Amino acid sequence: MELDHVRFMAIAIEEAKAGAAQGEQPFGAVVVDGKGELVVRSRSLKVSACDATAHSETLAVKYATQKLGRRMLPDCTFYATCEPCPMCLGAILNGGFNTLVLGARNRDIKQLAKIAFNFGDYTVERFAEMSGWDLKVIEGIRTAECIDLYATAKVELTR
Amino acid sequence: MELDHVRFMAIAIEEAKAGAAQGEQPFGAVVVDGKGELVVRSRSLKVSACDATAHSETLAVKYATQKLGRRMLPDCTFYATCEPCPMCLGAILNGGFNTLVLGARNRDIKQLAKIAFNFGDYTVERFAEMSGWDLKVIEGIRTAECIDLYATAKVELTR
Repeated sequence: MELDHVRFMAIAIEEAKAGAAQGEQPFGAVVVDGKGELVVRSRSLKVSACDATAHSETLAVKYATQKLGRRMLPDCTFYATCEPCPMCLGAILNGGFNTLVLGARNRDIKQLAKIAFNFGDYTVERFAEMSGWDLKVIEGIRTAECIDLYATAKVELTR
Repeated sequence: MELDHVRFMAIAIEEAKAGAAQGEQPFGAVVVDGKGELVVRSRSLKVSACDATAHSETLAVKYATQKLGRRMLPDCTFYATCEPCPMCLGAILNGGFNTLVLGARNRDIKQLAKIAFNFGDYTVERFAEMSGWDLKVIEGIRTAECIDLYATAKVELTR
């Protein structure tokens, strides 16, 4: 079925904002199943958990695979407010996803002042090509709102 | 200081074997600090936790960053019984590591019967190049023992 990407990205943005309000970096993710039902929503917890792996996207994969009771979710769609980092994209690969919906791109937010990470020439497409993964990327969903999350972030965006 | 790679890889192998004995896939990881002290040791928990992200390496990064109370560990060395998957290598990147010590390579274990994952042309070196990461890779440490972990695995090695 055709999913309402604009609606689900809005939920990911809500998560990012809720995270930012509690001192986290403003990243949000959502997993939706093949029937259009929201499975999980998540925000970054890496600051409060002092855990370099607790990004919103790894947590969404964790929560979704645990909730659905299976480690591969090829019927589900993944939403992220920003192009996931290589770790998070690897989590999405390991979760068996085939479709990724993006708000902002790393190249959009790299220009902003407080960004302290750099992944070289990495893009989700380049990673997918390297790993032999036929990933469908849908971009441009609420992009201006997503970029604004990072432009107005009160914390430095670090790894 | 010069670390005793053979000794620390033996601990990672112990973790992999202990995991296999409890029904997990036989992967183990160890983090050692700059003084040569073991920080954490870990095994895969993805089967028992039904969590696509609970690989030994992501867990080692989580445990180590939490234990040391900082999210970047450039002074630490990471040991893995097998070349980490893209997600796990991304976790090692996010954890700020600069040195990775390997037992087996994916290309070594791909030939074995029960391997059900495939990451295309991925190697740790190709990932590091893509992401602009000056990662030092030390390989060939207890490699035969590490390959044997996968050759004798009683569970199918899936994502």
